[in-house]
Amino acid sequence: MSDKLAEFTAFRQRMNERILAEDNQVVRRFFALDTQTYKAGALDVKTKEMLGLVASMVLRCDDCISYHVAQCKEAGVQRDEFFEVFSVGLVVGGSIVIPHLRRAVDLLDQLESGVDGTDATACADHA
Amino acid sequence: MSDKLAEFTAFRQRMNERILAEDNQVVRRFFALDTQTYKAGALDVKTKEMLGLVASMVLRCDDCISYHVAQCKEAGVQRDEFFEVFSVGLVVGGSIVIPHLRRAVDLLDQLESGVDGTDATACADHA
Amino acid sequence: MSDKLAEFTAFRQRMNERILAEDNQVVRRFFALDTQTYKAGALDVKTKEMLGLVASMVLRCDDCISYHVAQCKEAGVQRDEFFEVFSVGLVVGGSIVIPHLRRAVDLLDQLESGVDGTDATACADHA
Amino acid sequence: MSDKLAEFTAFRQRMNERILAEDNQVVRRFFALDTQTYKAGALDVKTKEMLGLVASMVLRCDDCISYHVAQCKEAGVQRDEFFEVFSVGLVVGGSIVIPHLRRAVDLLDQLESGVDGTDATACADHA
Amino acid sequence: MSDKLAEFTAFRQRMNERILAEDNQVVRRFFALDTQTYKAGALDVKTKEMLGLVASMVLRCDDCISYHVAQCKEAGVQRDEFFEVFSVGLVVGGSIVIPHLRRAVDLLDQLESGVDGTDATACADHA
Amino acid sequence: MSDKLAEFTAFRQRMNERILAEDNQVVRRFFALDTQTYKAGALDVKTKEMLGLVASMVLRCDDCISYHVAQCKEAGVQRDEFFEVFSVGLVVGGSIVIPHLRRAVDLLDQLESGVDGTDATACADHA
Repeated sequence: MSDKLAEFTAFRQRMNERILAEDNQVVRRFFALDTQTYKAGALDVKTKEMLGLVASMVLRCDDCISYHVAQCKEAGVQRDEFFEVFSVGLVVGGSIVIPHLRRAVDLLDQLESGVDGTDATACADHA
Repeated sequence: MSDKLAEFTAFRQRMNERILAEDNQVVRRFFALDTQTYKAGALDVKTKEMLGLVASMVLRCDDCISYHVAQCKEAGVQRDEFFEVFSVGLVVGGSIVIPHLRRAVDLLDQLESGVDGTDATACADHA
Repeated sequence: MSDKLAEFTAFRQRMNERILAEDNQVVRRFFALDTQTYKAGALDVKTKEMLGLVASMVLRCDDCISYHVAQCKEAGVQRDEFFEVFSVGLVVGGSIVIPHLRRAVDLLDQLESGVDGTDATACADHA
Repeated sequence: MSDKLAEFTAFRQRMNERILAEDNQVVRRFFALDTQTYKAGALDVKTKEMLGLVASMVLRCDDCISYHVAQCKEAGVQRDEFFEVFSVGLVVGGSIVIPHLRRAVDLLDQLESGVDGTDATACADHA
Repeated sequence: MSDKLAEFTAFRQRMNERILAEDNQVVRRFFALDTQTYKAGALDVKTKEMLGLVASMVLRCDDCISYHVAQCKEAGVQRDEFFEVFSVGLVVGGSIVIPHLRRAVDLLDQLESGVDGTDATACADHA
Repeated sequence: MSDKLAEFTAFRQRMNERILAEDNQVVRRFFALDTQTYKAGALDVKTKEMLGLVASMVLRCDDCISYHVAQCKEAGVQRDEFFEVFSVGLVVGGSIVIPHLRRAVDLLDQLESGVDGTDATACADHA
């Protein structure tokens, strides 16, 4: 895992702990609900993570895209499938999505080259 | 098919013809690309249509949601699967998505009650 | 309450019932969380409803704006206060907010002229 | 001018009057600034109106699009130029823009067929 | 004040000066209007700054969030009140807001721990 | 060209090559269409680039803004014209655009001071 990715992951984990330590039930329940959303149900985890990825792309949130790219990788999404998710995001969301697509592909390249599964999971603690 | 839905479908078809009759290659190619995006590839049509639906939900476009709800129905998405797509859209996009969710469920109810497959297709000429 | 407003309110109530009748825990919990969000806490209901209103304005959702205008009215927000909330929404969100501002002021005018409190509440079952 | 367009124009004018009659200096100044923005300067009115149109398209606001289509028409934008503005809006903003494009072309068709210049102006009192 | 925050503040101040030095009346008036928006009126500064904060959250602009967090701190918003503003932003805007929430809480932590009031103000020259 | 700008340009070029090397026709066609959009037609390149710039501003994408600022500079847009494009973006999009305006003016300053035309082009390989 690159230094930048490791730093980002550590920040995410530290801040999630800060947020969940706060005595605000709405915020805490929202975080719990967010986790519950991607559990297997009528749709499997792989499909749900792809849904989360395309939603993050058209809303153009790099952190969320990174999270779901890593989760999709864990769930078995293949490179050609990734690019089909990207193509939907690109066509629905327009060229404004392109800079985020570049960063998503960069992360995917990193995850595919010598990064083992454990690292991908570490990256993916939370959106 | 309700009068409102029929009127909307007719408008959509008429305007698509007007737009594609125009001598603007970028616009025409975009429409062709939009159609190509949802063809079966590494991912099947059903998955791609669910991706289009959740992207439309978080971007909060009623016409696009209606189109993809009808396409998803055609592609075999079941009611509980629809609601899982909706749940991802709702959690990612927030309560601002709720009014669109209501209209999506209303359309789904209409498509499920006595509307045959042909009508669903008629509704779904284009996003 | 005008016919249009009554029709809208009835639709909202009917669809909320349809949605909550569905066996999808994430969606149901989201609706419950949405309600909980605006309960009095460290901030009072009036402040929270104004927060909900300005958030709805900059995200440009008419149904959400209508809901929070009615809730704000119930919570005692005065006309000059409404316009200060509107001014924040307008300056943060830009001229693209103006069409929604027009419809918000139209609803506020209706609520202020001869519409009793019960109607305002009826309008405001849910965002 | 069609009944729907006339109704919309009347609503817009009535609400603008209501809003500007309010004693809120920020809102009033914003409206004045909005008008000033499209006056000829280093760029001419035609260019500025096309900028307003494409910005309204990618932000997907039908009322704003209608206003700027009418203003562009007044400023001499030709049909092929309109479609090039539309093409930029479509490619930058994605397929989510398509429903708004349909309504924009519908309005353009109305303005071009037997609607004289006065009507186009009447339609265009304000975004 | 951390090095990163100091660098950001310096950049903001330098660019505001560059922008306001330009002979463009619309831009300058917009900046003046932006400042005027948050002055005490029917609503007090604290309430207006919380409105600005929640609007910035749902529109997901880190710089604007940072500015309003600092302004809210100055205006006396307490930590539990901050989290209720955050909860509205989170529920209205969805999980896509979470990365911005993390950075907002990080800044709040910094402002609360050993950063005196002067620094908070320095951070907050302008959105 | 500053180190940061050079790094960004190199990343953009490298990732575009990675993306276009992928066997996904929709993504590749979208990139081709994006390039075609800004070619001279009924509107000249300068006007189209200004349209791309204002669209990028209101959608608040720094990379896209940087690209179109550089392209506009190449196409002969003068500083006072830039600020009129910015003013439309600011008024339509609201104060949420301000942080992006700061970075746009910063880049414009860099391009105007001792950066020759070649560098501006290098910066502008793609949105």
